[in-house]
Amino acid sequence: MRRIKPGGRLGIVGGGQLGRMIAIAAANYGLKVHVLAPDGDSPAFDVAAEHTVAAYDDAAALEAFAGRVDVVTYEFENIPHATAQRLAARAPLHPSAAALATTQDRLSEKGFVNGLGIPTAPFRAVDTSADLDAALAEIGRPAVLKTRRFGYDGKGQQMIRAEGPCDASAILAGFGGAPCILEGFVPFEREISVVAARAADGAFAAFDPCANEHRDHILASTHVPAPDLAPETAAEAIRIAQAIAEALDYVGVLAVEMFLVVEGGAQRLVVNEIAPRVHNSGHWTIEGALTSQFAQHVRAVCGWPLGDPARVGGMAVEMHNLIGAQADDWARLLAQPGTHLHLYGKGEARPGRKMGHLTRLKP
Amino acid sequence: MRRIKPGGRLGIVGGGQLGRMIAIAAANYGLKVHVLAPDGDSPAFDVAAEHTVAAYDDAAALEAFAGRVDVVTYEFENIPHATAQRLAARAPLHPSAAALATTQDRLSEKGFVNGLGIPTAPFRAVDTSADLDAALAEIGRPAVLKTRRFGYDGKGQQMIRAEGPCDASAILAGFGGAPCILEGFVPFEREISVVAARAADGAFAAFDPCANEHRDHILASTHVPAPDLAPETAAEAIRIAQAIAEALDYVGVLAVEMFLVVEGGAQRLVVNEIAPRVHNSGHWTIEGALTSQFAQHVRAVCGWPLGDPARVGGMAVEMHNLIGAQADDWARLLAQPGTHLHLYGKGEARPGRKMGHLTRLKP
Repeated sequence: MRRIKPGGRLGIVGGGQLGRMIAIAAANYGLKVHVLAPDGDSPAFDVAAEHTVAAYDDAAALEAFAGRVDVVTYEFENIPHATAQRLAARAPLHPSAAALATTQDRLSEKGFVNGLGIPTAPFRAVDTSADLDAALAEIGRPAVLKTRRFGYDGKGQQMIRAEGPCDASAILAGFGGAPCILEGFVPFEREISVVAARAADGAFAAFDPCANEHRDHILASTHVPAPDLAPETAAEAIRIAQAIAEALDYVGVLAVEMFLVVEGGAQRLVVNEIAPRVHNSGHWTIEGALTSQFAQHVRAVCGWPLGDPARVGGMAVEMHNLIGAQADDWARLLAQPGTHLHLYGKGEARPGRKMGHLTRLKP
Repeated sequence: MRRIKPGGRLGIVGGGQLGRMIAIAAANYGLKVHVLAPDGDSPAFDVAAEHTVAAYDDAAALEAFAGRVDVVTYEFENIPHATAQRLAARAPLHPSAAALATTQDRLSEKGFVNGLGIPTAPFRAVDTSADLDAALAEIGRPAVLKTRRFGYDGKGQQMIRAEGPCDASAILAGFGGAPCILEGFVPFEREISVVAARAADGAFAAFDPCANEHRDHILASTHVPAPDLAPETAAEAIRIAQAIAEALDYVGVLAVEMFLVVEGGAQRLVVNEIAPRVHNSGHWTIEGALTSQFAQHVRAVCGWPLGDPARVGGMAVEMHNLIGAQADDWARLLAQPGTHLHLYGKGEARPGRKMGHLTRLKP
């Protein structure tokens, strides 16, 4: 893998807060950043040396963009496969188009994970109401129907409860005919995630597993170390993330979300999903780790040595998202001792929109 | 003082690494940054939402710039007074034009500091060779002749040694007729500095005093806590910085460089100079303090509450500048565990040019 030098150009596809924080990390290493995104008001543009406003299927714009940078990465997995291939034809793309293809489809992702001998929820592909009826008969209820692609923050998901009526045709119609997957419900104690990086030479560095709390399907807070996570379970979580990264020949930061299941006092892990990118549950690393997930991602995609993922001073860390109007509380949060406030420079605080986050370290 | 809201616009005059790091800190708070600098290749432009390429005496450009932002600050003190006044007429300027005027002239600065009852080196104004002869007779040798204005990193300074010939006319000719000041030599043990912030409401927060080592008149490294600095001397150093900030009605971050003099085992402090801006000796605060000097400066100039300046986990911190070709060692430094590498995105590693810095925390 070619090593990018400081002064080199990093291309980022996607202009949201993740792209913004990657761009800032890259700037701290003296890189020039070029962001491509379809929205002219993208938060990442404000901290990038250059930007291109273009749709993700604008072939000419993608090729011009890739031709002007030394390496391309992305902030989110919902990039069309054709786009990834077009970029990769012009510039090194990390993570690879193949890793993206595996992880951006829930069905291929679960099959891939199971193929490594790592458990997931039971699942069945669902394209028709007959498929859904058959899948519910096999997997049982409660279960969750999800679109195979392009879902995030609870979008493209429908819970099917244990009791009550269940009209397969009506449920499927709500997804507009998109290919779906039915996932069995996992009775978990906690949701945890492992954010980790792999370099092209196979080096691997995981941040400590963290516990995640969601509200309305959106991450609300992250706590590290994860409460009640046995040391051997934490080690197993990291082994799972490493096995996944190696099997994908992954380069960059990824996040593996897992369910912690407790049965008869014993802990076991079930993989929920893989995010082939920096992740909201890794924001705590900006102040809480010796290397932030964003700096680590930049290191990996530039062919640089990975940084030390250890927690700063071994302190406990908590991260809270600021969703929608929660960010209006900025003045009070700024005045809280030891609170690190991050705001993403988004114009409008719509409900459910991630406007910022805050991090606190606890000695 | 009006409080700027996130989403508001911060104008920064000057496009070097200090402006770049202020811009990044501002972006982390969701502010839009507009940088004005004369060089089209300014490092701060790469992390700013907007920039203006204009000379510091371009009245039309200055007024257009100030008209587009909510508050103006600057990264260096060598701004013409007329420029500061022009900006302040259009937008709030912090630190103020008056604070700038006092501190950008070594003669007015030393008179101001002495006026507070705070010691400096002995000094005399020098405009002619007769002045210089008289000043040397009074102050004695060794001594240092400096231009009153526009000096930095040893530029505009001439040591006059204790022994040997001393041709006053020739020395002054080397400064091209610029108004000068002769400063008596202070036999110091160490150079320390206090980087601190003052808010418009009078709130004051100092980072721990640090020890600075120079090579070729350029800061080489900073260590905090400062070795051998008695706790009462450290407290006195902070009192001096606070007295200076209050007398200037200062808003923003400033640095006060001091000589630590030891006589008969007793420590005392002599103020060397005041920098009305963020300072190289405060770079350690990015990782080493709960609030970085750049975040603190943004807080102060936006009318926000000051952050906690305490060291992270009470750890010792060292900062080393990367000057000229030292930055070529980036790959080795990236691989050092616990080393935080910062590169400023400057194109050419000229000798004496500050290309980056690194910070290490020691538990």
